[in-house]
Parts: sequence; C-alpha cells; structure tokens
Amino acid sequence: MGEYRVASLESLIEQFERFPSVGHKTASRLAYHVLSMTDEDVMKFSRTVETAHKNIRHCRICCNLTDTEICSVCSDSSRDRSIICVVEDFRDVIALERTKEFNVTYHVLNGVLSPLDGITPDMICIKELLARLRDDTVKEVIMATNATVEGEATAMYISKLIRPLGIKVTRLAYGLPIGADLEYADEITLSRALSGRNEIID
Amino acid sequence: MGEYRVASLESLIEQFERFPSVGHKTASRLAYHVLSMTDEDVMKFSRTVETAHKNIRHCRICCNLTDTEICSVCSDSSRDRSIICVVEDFRDVIALERTKEFNVTYHVLNGVLSPLDGITPDMICIKELLARLRDDTVKEVIMATNATVEGEATAMYISKLIRPLGIKVTRLAYGLPIGADLEYADEITLSRALSGRNEIID
Repeated sequence: MGEYRVASLESLIEQFERFPSVGHKTASRLAYHVLSMTDEDVMKFSRTVETAHKNIRHCRICCNLTDTEICSVCSDSSRDRSIICVVEDFRDVIALERTKEFNVTYHVLNGVLSPLDGITPDMICIKELLARLRDDTVKEVIMATNATVEGEATAMYISKLIRPLGIKVTRLAYGLPIGADLEYADEITLSRALSGRNEIID
Repeated sequence: MGEYRVASLESLIEQFERFPSVGHKTASRLAYHVLSMTDEDVMKFSRTVETAHKNIRHCRICCNLTDTEICSVCSDSSRDRSIICVVEDFRDVIALERTKEFNVTYHVLNGVLSPLDGITPDMICIKELLARLRDDTVKEVIMATNATVEGEATAMYISKLIRPLGIKVTRLAYGLPIGADLEYADEITLSRALSGRNEIID
C-alpha cells in the first residue's frame, strides 16, 4: 500500500520546522496557510523575506540592525550624543525605545563575552564602541547588558577599557520589578534590591 | 526624537502576522530568525514557498491536494477501489492514513455544505464524486465528514444522492474516544455511544 504523499507540501513543512519553537503541527499549519494564499500574496511574502534578508545590515556607527547605511537613531540629530547605551542585541534597543523617555544613542554589541562558547572580545562589536569614544562627545556610557553571568562579565570587561578614558560608566539599576510581590522575588534580586536601597527624600 | 525603525524588518513581521494564530511576538521571532539565516537558506525557503504554492493542485480524480496530475493514492494500484472514503479536507486524509489500516481510496469535498456561509452543493466537489460512481467499481461510500452540524448535513445530502445508485453508504462510528473517561464525556457523545451500543460476542 503506497502512502499519500505530496512532496512540495512536505518540503514546505520541513522549511517551517527550521524556525525556532516551531514543531511539526505549527509548521503544518503555517504551510497549509501558504497553500490557501493568493498567488499575489505568496509572491509578496517571499519577496519580503528575500528583501529583508538582503537589505538588513549593521549600522556603520552603532552596529544596530538597519536597512540603511546609518540607522535611524544615529542619523537623528535630536538624540543626545553625549550618552551611549551599550546593549547585547537589537531587540534590547527595541525594548528600551519602548520606554519612550530615553533620548540617547545606542551601541549594539551583537553578542556577549562567553569563554565557554568561544566568544572572545574581538568577536563582538567592542572596537567599534571604542572608536566612537575617541573624540570628546561622549560623557557617559550606560552598560545595559543583560543581568546574566555573561552580561555582567561583558559589562565589567568593557567598563575597564572605558574608565581610563575619563568617561563615566554606569550600569542599569537592579532591584524589584514594578508590580512584583516581595514574597515571590528570588533571593539574588532581593539582596540586590537591599544593597542598592535609596534614601527617601521628601 | 525620531524612532528606531527598520522598514524591511517591519514589513517582514507584518507578513508573518498574516499567518493564523501568529501574533506580534511570534511574528517578530520568526522574522528575527530569517535575519539570522544564511543567504542560501533564505533563497531555499522562499523558493520552497513559491514552488509549493505553484505546484499544489487538486487531484483530477479525488480532488485531494497533490503536486502531480493524479495523487499518489489514486495512482496506487494496490488500493481497494471498491471503497471511497469521503472527507471534507486533505487534512482528514492525512489523519485517516495515519491509522495505516485503511487501504481505500478517498474523495475530498474541499468544504462542507453551509447555507449560512453561502456554501451550496455546486461549490464543493460533489459532482466529481458522482462522476466516479458511474461505472460499477465502487461498492461502498464511507461518509467521513466531521461530527459537526455542517458535516452531518453534508453526509446526509450526499448519501441521499448516492443510495438510489444501489451503492452502500456508511458513516463513521460515533462513541467514546479510546482512553476517555466516562465522567468527562459530553452528553451528546454519551447518548450516541449508548444508542450505537454493540453486543459483546465471545
């Protein structure tokens, strides 16, 4: 007894299965949707995928993702160029921009130092950051890497390179997230919230 | 203050958001994955999408999805051509084939009758089914439409057309799913399981 097989559909499902957190069921659902799309929509979809992949590159200044030579933040003259906020990934920029009160420039490392994974300082965008500090524009560098072992180590490594240049280096505040319940906070967060306590001033 | 925007990335996320059950977060994750793919993989992905959409059509005999003129089930000489199993959708064929003990041919309606949605008999593949019953090959038609109001109505409508031809028309058995707990079964399933009870024969 021969099986019911549709080779093109199987390859399509296989392609979708390569995406992160997409299992066979989700991949099938996505593939079935492609079959129900109009010719025009399919062409538009595949062109958008190709165009995005081709056009998106790193900004020549801050190494953030952009589809132009220089990203929209670096080319925005209203930004405060005296502060650079250093992050691991372009997604962090999107998260910080969501606060809508952070009118600074960014520097995207595109990775973190991780000796275990073989990620050394020359493999992430540190030299590009140092190049930006050569003139006297920058007064402060905010290390906004993640609160993980690798993120901390990277922040430490970079701040040791920058401090001798006479530039202030700061780190994001650690503590309880807003809306959090003390009872459920983990002990490391709690002890950081305690050691970083601030005086209440009327 | 200008926003951080990457137009190509935004259009890519928008494209993924058009897929069913894909919200903004999932669409972003899928789009970010596209950016991290190699040039080769991106081309392969977009070509597979286009090829699948272009090649997949309805089988000339059973109206099932196929990328050849006649699907792999209809062109399989080892299948029992005296039984046709009628289903709503190609996904139902995949589900039935999974049982691996159902060596029959199929007929895919590609829809169900639904007066409320304006789906009339000529909009689903009923005439193609009747055409297959003209010679004396088919002895039994199994109505395997879903156990929904529309599925039932469609099964009734088609069986009324087929019975006068002297062909046996059957319906899938209704009852408790295997492994189900009586306590949690809904009352309609239970009453169908009761009315369809079978005698235990040693």
